[in-house]
Amino acid sequence: MKESPLFWPAFLKKDVLFVLDETLIPEKVKYIQVKTPSQAVKVIKTMKTRAFGQFLVVLSTFLLVLKDKNIKSDKALVKKFFDVAHALNKSRPTFPFSEVTGMILGWAQKAQKENKDLRLSLQKSIEGFLFGIRGRRLERVQKLADTIKKHKVILTHCNVSGELAMAAQICKSAGKNISFFATETRPYFQGSRLTAWELKKAGVPVTLVADNAVATLMRDKIIDAVVVGSDRSCANGDFANKIGTLQIAVLAKEFDVPFYVLTQPSNKVKNGGDIPIEIRDENELLKVRGKRFAPKGVKGFYPGFDVVPHKFITKAIAINVN
Amino acid sequence: MKESPLFWPAFLKKDVLFVLDETLIPEKVKYIQVKTPSQAVKVIKTMKTRAFGQFLVVLSTFLLVLKDKNIKSDKALVKKFFDVAHALNKSRPTFPFSEVTGMILGWAQKAQKENKDLRLSLQKSIEGFLFGIRGRRLERVQKLADTIKKHKVILTHCNVSGELAMAAQICKSAGKNISFFATETRPYFQGSRLTAWELKKAGVPVTLVADNAVATLMRDKIIDAVVVGSDRSCANGDFANKIGTLQIAVLAKEFDVPFYVLTQPSNKVKNGGDIPIEIRDENELLKVRGKRFAPKGVKGFYPGFDVVPHKFITKAIAINVN
Repeated sequence: MKESPLFWPAFLKKDVLFVLDETLIPEKVKYIQVKTPSQAVKVIKTMKTRAFGQFLVVLSTFLLVLKDKNIKSDKALVKKFFDVAHALNKSRPTFPFSEVTGMILGWAQKAQKENKDLRLSLQKSIEGFLFGIRGRRLERVQKLADTIKKHKVILTHCNVSGELAMAAQICKSAGKNISFFATETRPYFQGSRLTAWELKKAGVPVTLVADNAVATLMRDKIIDAVVVGSDRSCANGDFANKIGTLQIAVLAKEFDVPFYVLTQPSNKVKNGGDIPIEIRDENELLKVRGKRFAPKGVKGFYPGFDVVPHKFITKAIAINVN
Repeated sequence: MKESPLFWPAFLKKDVLFVLDETLIPEKVKYIQVKTPSQAVKVIKTMKTRAFGQFLVVLSTFLLVLKDKNIKSDKALVKKFFDVAHALNKSRPTFPFSEVTGMILGWAQKAQKENKDLRLSLQKSIEGFLFGIRGRRLERVQKLADTIKKHKVILTHCNVSGELAMAAQICKSAGKNISFFATETRPYFQGSRLTAWELKKAGVPVTLVADNAVATLMRDKIIDAVVVGSDRSCANGDFANKIGTLQIAVLAKEFDVPFYVLTQPSNKVKNGGDIPIEIRDENELLKVRGKRFAPKGVKGFYPGFDVVPHKFITKAIAINVN
């Protein structure tokens, strides 16, 4: 099975964090070299990486700090960890980076209290956690394959970081050929640039549609299921995902199409109403390929995410937690 | 009140039909000079003009034929009318051009039978019809203003050819300041290029959103009504309009937002299921500004329209038909 570069888009090599520049795909597969925490915050803020890639960057940034030889004492290291956590947490409001950074800060304080070799202990914890995530994501890919294998044509929105392409390959090797429709996912075109690209690369048939064509695909029974990812989950099952997911969920209910979501369960937020929604720069909407498309003087409004109430979910395909 | 160039985007001047090139807006306001029926078919097929502009072109093309001095006999003129009607009818499947061309052919046959001066009689009929349409559209603008004046922030999709901008101005002069959200309307960007442009030009506040943001605007009560146009109506009240309209209608019902549509009632088609939907060239979706955006080898599916069942309509603002 081919692993999509989007499945694991950031990794440490010696003292450098390599981050896949998703804004260059499909034209180029190129990695940005991140050497400092502030560079890490920048690749997140500017959406050079997104979704799962951001979490890898968040986790790996602490590994970068551990390699910083200018930090001499344990005290200075813990202080640096707190500073880095703070900067990462506030980089994008909708993402629960604090859940990850909080966990790491907990490890740091515990190891310090227990008088362990702080650097070594933290490195082991973070690397072990990353290794665990990898395994649990591969498990989720299998669960996803088990869920979608009974369908023929699936609609997806935005990009679920490699998992859909892998699940489709599992189905294919079991003789179940599933094809996909991907929304282009304005304004960032993740569906066009990333999802269509990785599905095509994996040898899985994929057709692009405008975000406006979703109702037609459902009404005319061209698709028989929807799969989306989630950026954040709530205790009650509500979840936040890329703008446009809510309307697809509402339409799936109206047209009686199964609606599946890949989740990372969390109880930190009670329900969807409590998730803050990031409003991004209007220029990301008004400009296409860096050139302004909208008429002069017209404003744009670009909420980056929306929240889907749990009542619209047919089944959540959850990552195993703990 | 300023009249938007989109309100009357095609007109005859001597022997030339001037057609507003809507693909150049907002960068340029330029008119294409159409001198032959085949040029007229081309501006329609390539969507240089669209919606109401197409009907003006269809009607005006017969006026062009009347000015053709190479057509000597009445018999040749009627034959030419039939040929031109045929070419126009098949230019875009979703549009009921045959209703208009059929009417004109009826006039031609009747005038021929009654031994009238064929050219003069047809010219009077067509010009009179155009004059009548203009009046009835202005009436509809007034009706639209009466309907929207009780709202504060209105969402619109695609472009309703000048009427919304004029209705907003009527409201404004009555002290009711309405602002608008326009979907960008992928893949052709009519909302961005045309609607936002003409509203801004008319001094009416307008904000662009991605087509994906519709559910958020409704759920968060940022808008309190929807106004769309229609390309074709059915006897039962169903209507066809630009792709994306159906999903906005479903969402409006879900989130309890009034959904208004400007219609041209017709009984020629019984219900929405009988309207043929034009599937346009995938390149119009896959390329942005003429440059391919989608990854190599990926296909596109671009249905140009969708059909909204009448149950989703809060109120149809109909043009008076006599």
